[in-house]
Amino acid sequence: MAEVVVSYQVITDEKELKELARKISIEQSVETPESLITGEIESRYLGQLKEVSVVSDKANTFNISLAYPEEIVSQQYNQLINLCFGNVSMYPNVKLIDISLPQHLLNIFSGPNYGVTGIRDCLGVYGRPLLATALKPRGYTNEQFANMCYEFALGGGDIIKDDQNLVSNFDDFKQRVSQCLAAIDKAQQSSGKACLYFPFISAPFEEIEKYFVWVKAQGVKGVLLAPLILGLDTSRGLATKYDLIYMAHPSFTGSYCVSPNEGMSYHLLYGLLYRLAGVDISVYPNTGGRFEFSEQDCKSIADELRRPLGNIKSAFPCPAGGMQYSDLQRMCEWYKQDSVLLLGGSLLEYSPSLKKSTQAFKDKLSASFEEKIVEHTRTTFSSSCEYNYEGNNSLLEYIEFNNYEWLGREKVEYKNVSDGSFSNIKRVELVGKNGEHCQFDLRYFEITQNGYSTKEMHEHVHVIIGARGKGKVIVDNKEYEVKENDVLYIKPMTTHQLLNSNVEAFGFYCIVDRERDQPIAAQ
Amino acid sequence: MAEVVVSYQVITDEKELKELARKISIEQSVETPESLITGEIESRYLGQLKEVSVVSDKANTFNISLAYPEEIVSQQYNQLINLCFGNVSMYPNVKLIDISLPQHLLNIFSGPNYGVTGIRDCLGVYGRPLLATALKPRGYTNEQFANMCYEFALGGGDIIKDDQNLVSNFDDFKQRVSQCLAAIDKAQQSSGKACLYFPFISAPFEEIEKYFVWVKAQGVKGVLLAPLILGLDTSRGLATKYDLIYMAHPSFTGSYCVSPNEGMSYHLLYGLLYRLAGVDISVYPNTGGRFEFSEQDCKSIADELRRPLGNIKSAFPCPAGGMQYSDLQRMCEWYKQDSVLLLGGSLLEYSPSLKKSTQAFKDKLSASFEEKIVEHTRTTFSSSCEYNYEGNNSLLEYIEFNNYEWLGREKVEYKNVSDGSFSNIKRVELVGKNGEHCQFDLRYFEITQNGYSTKEMHEHVHVIIGARGKGKVIVDNKEYEVKENDVLYIKPMTTHQLLNSNVEAFGFYCIVDRERDQPIAAQ
Repeated sequence: MAEVVVSYQVITDEKELKELARKISIEQSVETPESLITGEIESRYLGQLKEVSVVSDKANTFNISLAYPEEIVSQQYNQLINLCFGNVSMYPNVKLIDISLPQHLLNIFSGPNYGVTGIRDCLGVYGRPLLATALKPRGYTNEQFANMCYEFALGGGDIIKDDQNLVSNFDDFKQRVSQCLAAIDKAQQSSGKACLYFPFISAPFEEIEKYFVWVKAQGVKGVLLAPLILGLDTSRGLATKYDLIYMAHPSFTGSYCVSPNEGMSYHLLYGLLYRLAGVDISVYPNTGGRFEFSEQDCKSIADELRRPLGNIKSAFPCPAGGMQYSDLQRMCEWYKQDSVLLLGGSLLEYSPSLKKSTQAFKDKLSASFEEKIVEHTRTTFSSSCEYNYEGNNSLLEYIEFNNYEWLGREKVEYKNVSDGSFSNIKRVELVGKNGEHCQFDLRYFEITQNGYSTKEMHEHVHVIIGARGKGKVIVDNKEYEVKENDVLYIKPMTTHQLLNSNVEAFGFYCIVDRERDQPIAAQ
Repeated sequence: MAEVVVSYQVITDEKELKELARKISIEQSVETPESLITGEIESRYLGQLKEVSVVSDKANTFNISLAYPEEIVSQQYNQLINLCFGNVSMYPNVKLIDISLPQHLLNIFSGPNYGVTGIRDCLGVYGRPLLATALKPRGYTNEQFANMCYEFALGGGDIIKDDQNLVSNFDDFKQRVSQCLAAIDKAQQSSGKACLYFPFISAPFEEIEKYFVWVKAQGVKGVLLAPLILGLDTSRGLATKYDLIYMAHPSFTGSYCVSPNEGMSYHLLYGLLYRLAGVDISVYPNTGGRFEFSEQDCKSIADELRRPLGNIKSAFPCPAGGMQYSDLQRMCEWYKQDSVLLLGGSLLEYSPSLKKSTQAFKDKLSASFEEKIVEHTRTTFSSSCEYNYEGNNSLLEYIEFNNYEWLGREKVEYKNVSDGSFSNIKRVELVGKNGEHCQFDLRYFEITQNGYSTKEMHEHVHVIIGARGKGKVIVDNKEYEVKENDVLYIKPMTTHQLLNSNVEAFGFYCIVDRERDQPIAAQ
């Protein structure tokens, strides 16, 4: 039977070692007095003491390994944490030092969405460490931040992230992100080299998905999250749902690793647990900076993020925190090619021109490696059902219908786009754009004679109700005629297009999830 | 200007104390080299050293207080954590010991949904500590757990929660919760005294709301969550969204408090931070049990949970972990009336009859206090739009309309209920009950002459589109006539009822969130 092996460093009198191991095993699995542990419960759920070794340089210190039946993890990340370090996190003189998972349990954890290779493909940068920086300090204007993005991207930098202190409100966030993206876009157009911008998302539970939906719609490729604040599995789930590169910030993590006798080893938190929870880039304090992580701790994190681990992608180590230009050579030697070197303050202080500083830092990185850059190209695409709509209507309780117009709701006939993606479509946003408390939007579309919608696909579904005239709907290779009150459910990632060849307008309601992915053009 | 005052215990050479305070202030606010900190940034965001005191019994140990302008918290819980203990959590020899918030910042944190008073009202138990236990050990059958619930409730116990190790899958979860609720219901019918059951919810991000929706629909009043695993604000958000009593389990929390020189004080995590994050009942290890929390630590947690704190409700301290019958008297004296005493293993071991053990423990509690019990009563209520529907249809892409019937979709005319809640309504579940990937359900309702829907209210909204004939809709004290294609948005918690006095049937589409709360009867 497959086993999960969990190892701890414990400080105890040797005579009490076995008893302590038993106590931990019970605490973490069934938390019940011995008298209630039957043979079947023991064999199905309890951990058995598998190995004991003496830690030679510390008095009364031992490493012990407990082997649990795999069933106890219930194929769940949260339960893995609960098992390895739930109640026992409250024991003094017990430190979690290793976790070993059987292969097919590993396979149920999704790991990074992009990983080292996926991020390199987004950037088109191969063969050398990536250069990253942070937008700071809080207090700068969004124009100043956008300008930093522009200079950093022009100077050849790879990733620019928000500082984790850049927390304000949604409007300011949108303004900053829009301006930074525009600045990077401009730099990319001129340099031909891609640069990624990762906004920091920190918002109350009630609002946080709004941020993800919005950044995704802007074409943002990745985000910075603080997993110990948001929750490890919550961060994974959000990054995965929105298919984003997930850079993890170590805010609020230190207590798990700072004590030599309690908490857990550095490589477990910033390495294994992060990687299992989908972190693509793990930011942690580099040795020799403002924090006291040792050289060995830092290397153990980097190794854990990149070692072969079932089907789970490798993640980037991202040492940070007070490193200087003069440290770069050594960091390149230590961390090797597949790392992200994050330089904040020292890059800003290096010269009055951020572009020139970035070039200097980047050149230093490239010098030790054989870099390969793939030119950045852009694609454009217009979707008829997501096109350019800025509603200015108010939340209405009663929206009266009158001959395919609705009182208080504008019927927008947008100009046909130059790429011919769609034609002759009018739209009425009935419910959802005005602060309504629902998880869906209700729209009415009308296609006049010879008009058609964009041929596209997306993860979110369409539910369509015929409301006026009739039209043709092509879904993959099927064709339907839709007339009044016919209902059509268009499945995820199905190519679809709606057309009207009749004189009478073809009108239909279309209901979509409020939070939805951007359409992809179909051929 | 209002200030947030954050206090740390630091171990350092006295000569370096001011420098360290400055370093922490910069680390936590703008994380930027001194050269980039302008006067305006300094005054808007940096913390000023406000107080220094010597800790008399520890060498080189000081308490320092930094006062930050309120703006830096951005009215956000996650940012409060980031500010007080983000990066500095990685500093050795720095421990967070206090946080003081200005009044109107306190008011933006919602705090417990129910608090001490709300939970007492749910239970009808006043004047004494509450007696709680845990369903354990993992490995018992659901029948065994249900029987434990029955015996505990009959014995006069107040709260029974899942053990945090009871993690399996959704089907098993549903079976356990259903059986436990039924058992408690049976006991309540016979004893007339209420008992609350809190299932432990631990599930991947993608599935977790499914659990909340389901338990809410079963009438569950509260849940057990592990906030440091799920995320502090995520737990708050979920408990609030589903209006549940939120009991917090300390799994994975220990590293924040176990070290004397790092992490944070017990009362901050299990008290203030929990309470601000909506915890109604904070479970923590009692002194003298299996863990090494001191008497003083435990009292500081209890005091923090119950002290006056702006408009934020008081929460229950819930000491747990290896306490015995013989400890009860002392615990009652220590913790006083407004506490929940959680006894697991010792209650199970006390006698062969859990009912008798519970009675004995409960009597011990009652002896020191003047208990008052309000009899438990049940209310029944039928909602026309959520009534008894079990769909057996398959996912269809094209659902053809024909004279207000849809191919492949049953039109259900359910029997009018005996309480007269609604009359003459037919329903067609068009989209949403058959595995469709959307966040909403599309239904068609038809009210024939003299029929009416239930007069009710709920948190989720209705979006209604007139489709056949016309009808009357009463929303609070307004009345609308709805005809074909009129759209109606019924706001959260608004009393509403739909009626038809015409010969022609009144048909309408009704779109609702997939995950929605249960309706409440309106008068």
